[in-house]
Amino acid sequence: MIEKYRIRTDLALEQKERFAADNVEVPGVILDETYDEEREIRVTTVKIETENGAKIMGKPVGTYITMEAPDLAVPDEGYHEEISAELAKFLKPFVPMDKPEYSVLVAGLGNRYVTPDALGPYVADHLNITRHIVKEYGRYAMGKDQVCMVSAVIPGVMGQTGMETVEVIRGVIKQTKPDLLIVVDALAARSTRRLNRTIQISDTGIHPGSGVGNHRNAITKETVGVPVISIGVPTVVDAATIVNDTMENFIRALESSETLKGVGVVLSGYNAAEKYELVKELISPHLNGLFVTPKDIDDTIRRISFTISEALNLLFSGGQAHNPSAGLI
Amino acid sequence: MIEKYRIRTDLALEQKERFAADNVEVPGVILDETYDEEREIRVTTVKIETENGAKIMGKPVGTYITMEAPDLAVPDEGYHEEISAELAKFLKPFVPMDKPEYSVLVAGLGNRYVTPDALGPYVADHLNITRHIVKEYGRYAMGKDQVCMVSAVIPGVMGQTGMETVEVIRGVIKQTKPDLLIVVDALAARSTRRLNRTIQISDTGIHPGSGVGNHRNAITKETVGVPVISIGVPTVVDAATIVNDTMENFIRALESSETLKGVGVVLSGYNAAEKYELVKELISPHLNGLFVTPKDIDDTIRRISFTISEALNLLFSGGQAHNPSAGLI
Amino acid sequence: MIEKYRIRTDLALEQKERFAADNVEVPGVILDETYDEEREIRVTTVKIETENGAKIMGKPVGTYITMEAPDLAVPDEGYHEEISAELAKFLKPFVPMDKPEYSVLVAGLGNRYVTPDALGPYVADHLNITRHIVKEYGRYAMGKDQVCMVSAVIPGVMGQTGMETVEVIRGVIKQTKPDLLIVVDALAARSTRRLNRTIQISDTGIHPGSGVGNHRNAITKETVGVPVISIGVPTVVDAATIVNDTMENFIRALESSETLKGVGVVLSGYNAAEKYELVKELISPHLNGLFVTPKDIDDTIRRISFTISEALNLLFSGGQAHNPSAGLI
Amino acid sequence: MIEKYRIRTDLALEQKERFAADNVEVPGVILDETYDEEREIRVTTVKIETENGAKIMGKPVGTYITMEAPDLAVPDEGYHEEISAELAKFLKPFVPMDKPEYSVLVAGLGNRYVTPDALGPYVADHLNITRHIVKEYGRYAMGKDQVCMVSAVIPGVMGQTGMETVEVIRGVIKQTKPDLLIVVDALAARSTRRLNRTIQISDTGIHPGSGVGNHRNAITKETVGVPVISIGVPTVVDAATIVNDTMENFIRALESSETLKGVGVVLSGYNAAEKYELVKELISPHLNGLFVTPKDIDDTIRRISFTISEALNLLFSGGQAHNPSAGLI
Repeated sequence: MIEKYRIRTDLALEQKERFAADNVEVPGVILDETYDEEREIRVTTVKIETENGAKIMGKPVGTYITMEAPDLAVPDEGYHEEISAELAKFLKPFVPMDKPEYSVLVAGLGNRYVTPDALGPYVADHLNITRHIVKEYGRYAMGKDQVCMVSAVIPGVMGQTGMETVEVIRGVIKQTKPDLLIVVDALAARSTRRLNRTIQISDTGIHPGSGVGNHRNAITKETVGVPVISIGVPTVVDAATIVNDTMENFIRALESSETLKGVGVVLSGYNAAEKYELVKELISPHLNGLFVTPKDIDDTIRRISFTISEALNLLFSGGQAHNPSAGLI
Repeated sequence: MIEKYRIRTDLALEQKERFAADNVEVPGVILDETYDEEREIRVTTVKIETENGAKIMGKPVGTYITMEAPDLAVPDEGYHEEISAELAKFLKPFVPMDKPEYSVLVAGLGNRYVTPDALGPYVADHLNITRHIVKEYGRYAMGKDQVCMVSAVIPGVMGQTGMETVEVIRGVIKQTKPDLLIVVDALAARSTRRLNRTIQISDTGIHPGSGVGNHRNAITKETVGVPVISIGVPTVVDAATIVNDTMENFIRALESSETLKGVGVVLSGYNAAEKYELVKELISPHLNGLFVTPKDIDDTIRRISFTISEALNLLFSGGQAHNPSAGLI
Repeated sequence: MIEKYRIRTDLALEQKERFAADNVEVPGVILDETYDEEREIRVTTVKIETENGAKIMGKPVGTYITMEAPDLAVPDEGYHEEISAELAKFLKPFVPMDKPEYSVLVAGLGNRYVTPDALGPYVADHLNITRHIVKEYGRYAMGKDQVCMVSAVIPGVMGQTGMETVEVIRGVIKQTKPDLLIVVDALAARSTRRLNRTIQISDTGIHPGSGVGNHRNAITKETVGVPVISIGVPTVVDAATIVNDTMENFIRALESSETLKGVGVVLSGYNAAEKYELVKELISPHLNGLFVTPKDIDDTIRRISFTISEALNLLFSGGQAHNPSAGLI
Repeated sequence: MIEKYRIRTDLALEQKERFAADNVEVPGVILDETYDEEREIRVTTVKIETENGAKIMGKPVGTYITMEAPDLAVPDEGYHEEISAELAKFLKPFVPMDKPEYSVLVAGLGNRYVTPDALGPYVADHLNITRHIVKEYGRYAMGKDQVCMVSAVIPGVMGQTGMETVEVIRGVIKQTKPDLLIVVDALAARSTRRLNRTIQISDTGIHPGSGVGNHRNAITKETVGVPVISIGVPTVVDAATIVNDTMENFIRALESSETLKGVGVVLSGYNAAEKYELVKELISPHLNGLFVTPKDIDDTIRRISFTISEALNLLFSGGQAHNPSAGLI
């Protein structure tokens, strides 16, 4: 059974759905869902509360909030402003700002030169950076009693730097001692339907590869020394996942097919593990290292990265923070 | 005398000022100025009405509107929205939209890879492009009786293309037959005070190099076949100009200096032309091909290009046109 | 049968292979293959000689040369230089340079902001552009009796310009009258094995979408007025193709499976068309507009685009043409 | 006198020249010059040996090697390859590689989005990064007994990150423990003649602003914990410098002028300090924060950054290291 659920997804929601589809209850995992009909925003909260739940889900203990908004990929400015405000609202509990000079480091992960992986760098590009100003002139120069000092880092990817992302981030945190790290990253989903329509917030950090356990290269409170909030948007599906999913549908169709009744009878004689093996050997090794993404990914990434940077600017400034320098390069 | 006024500026306003400083009246040139105290926007309209005026001014007959806004280079979103609206208002009389499917081509001139010259390409990047949608689905698909079909071209510079800008634009116009061409370009000012604080709108097209006369490579109604509106922002000063200006001040200071009275006496024995010669031979030939620009030109160009693209989006849509995909690459 | 061969590929070679796999002879289509063992370069020439052959192949009459080099995606400078020289050799017969000032326009098609689609723009970025120099100083300034005047255009994509690519190119050609158009574009392959390992040269132009017939938006001698040579590299596979292919393998496996003999017996009772229908209804409509590409596409595109621009620089200069400004932006 | 020498230059050579022009000997500073006539490369070594010499020069104790090559800004590939080899030769003594796995971190300083300041990021973009490969597979996988592990960081500028450059670099060094730091940065020259024609290597690190003394934000062995080699190319001249220099020439010309003999007589009655004051008050405050750079800075920066990255690739690999992925972004 576990094998079956090994298909890669960075969304806790999708992992939960897989079990739900088979009517499998996962102990230690709580689900809550709300739907805002007017704005068509669905918010799902998955709480993994026990180590056992974490093991089954293949994701660490913590809270995962997912906002699904079908029009997130659509160019409608008013709508994006609403999503920014909504996102800021959901992030607020994770960013206490409980001191006069609260300091946040935002890390924009990913590869700026591969379009669907550029989300993190683009978000970092459009933040209102203030740490150096407060350091130089004091928080009163900002005309406020309480300020959020914002800094940002774009660590790049290993092929460009020769370093693990966590090495760069830990180094910067040790030097600049922020109160909180926010990482922004592009994710892999299981379903193409979720691409660029979903934002996941979690308090569990980033676990390269996947799964639980002690990962040397994870970006978590344990490895970097400060709480970590992650914001992710699924922008790709692994090519192997998409093929595997279609084949599962195919087998299901064969099993229930009227025209191909005989096939169904034969296949239903095999159990899930056997069927998984059957599928696996047919998935081309050429699919390793390949991903699936939409043709208009450039526009979509620009819009969503702007929606997220605006949410962060709003959150950090405690209100109006729309940044006219949105443009660029 | 003419020699003295040969210093390069793309702003009609600055050319006019030069004559005004010497109390020289230019026949055939009318000046009008308004000042909005609250928003600190100064609008100057220079109308060159006769060929003689054009010859003296070194600029073609036509209307030149200059908006000066000291905070244009400052990151304040509300203010930039106001400037966008104001700019749209000034552009409106030049864009009649006098038919159900009015078509505008916007050309973003300049070199995307030299920061202060990237204004045109950045503006083109952020326009709401609609021509292909109207062509495919008709104007009623836009939910309107009257639509503006917007297309854009970024012709690049000669070193990148091997072609004159006007060749590319004329070619595109012949094929796509827009009703109007709007060119957006970075300009050279004479005064560093005007850099990134001034927007010039004119109905005379673009005259590479400068001056009047029949220029093969000008981008005008004569060379491209449709009316041409140009929008420009001074982002550089020629290095030779800045040195020349400082030296003129220096000579003026020497002439009136108390400490250096003797120098003043001697210099005042020479006429303007002789002094110009004196200055010219001291201006290093190394200054050719050099320009002066501010260190924070990247942020400034991003913001102003966005202000202009928003003004155009507003204008073309007949109202709300803020584009959330401001972000990007 | 035709249905079966409708799977999208821009490579004539792959289309031919599909028929070959079924031992179907295509009349009017000639195949020739050579293999350079030392350098592992396979060169296949597909000649479509009749309209009937064109109809069956779904590609216009003409010559298609494919160079396959497994190490094209690998960072080995010496090897890339060899490929550049080889490619220049294959292009030579198509570029007669039969006059003292022979003029070539290179069009870099595609979307610079979607990594696997950026091949064309990147190639255009790195060409040695000479048309404007020859125009200004004459061919003798180049120290030669015979020169190739090179110009380049990066027309962008419709979402950015509102114009068909062919409108921009035809406009530029009408104005600048080159003797030849070379278009460089990223292609879609059917097999992931070919991605970034194959270069196709053809003399048939570019046919957006696919297939034969009078396409308004094709870029061919008919639509632009000068001969068109196209250079393409497959950088993506359509998501629908990859799923379809895997499913065909799956069905084939089921048919010959020992363990699932019963399934095979049942399936073999259905003909190809019925099986195609079966597959089609299982392929998610969500796959439309999705493509598959490798994770390291940024490095690969940079290298291959440089290999192609070097080949063109070599070809146009008639020898040494390595361009040190290979660097970036 | 010191005042006079305060004009900003990042080149030790230019500082030395200023004293030489006035026949001022600077104690504790040694100069050595060689000239390669064939290749027109002038190499000057300035050694500041005492703290007193450092104080007078306004630069820290250490060695400054300057390569001047007039054709560095010219597109000639063979020539650039020679410069790369020459530069690698000069760098070699500073990079001992005295252990089996010698580790170098290269920091590309500056702002990628302001063209003349993009040198550092562009160099970092084109390095052969190997640290992660050696870490994963060991040095024998590289087929060598001795390897250089190369990593790179592009720290960005304070307006983008909110952090001092030294904070980012020190953090990364503490985590990854390289044996040597090489910083690459764009410099300010005093003379426009040196722009993009000069490469300075020094073993004294980077001192933002200028001058000697304990600078919190300097990037030196003291502040980052490992030896620091810096490679710089002057790409800008401060606008104030260019004006000041021209005025000094002007005063000198006035003093020796035949036509303006009287002026010379008067001016020569004033000492250097008085003349400096005269000049200073005429230099517009508008010149602060402005720089001068050539119009073709995009091509020049690309070529020189490639020449430097190739020199480093050669040096680190111990021979052949030309990187075909020279291409772009």
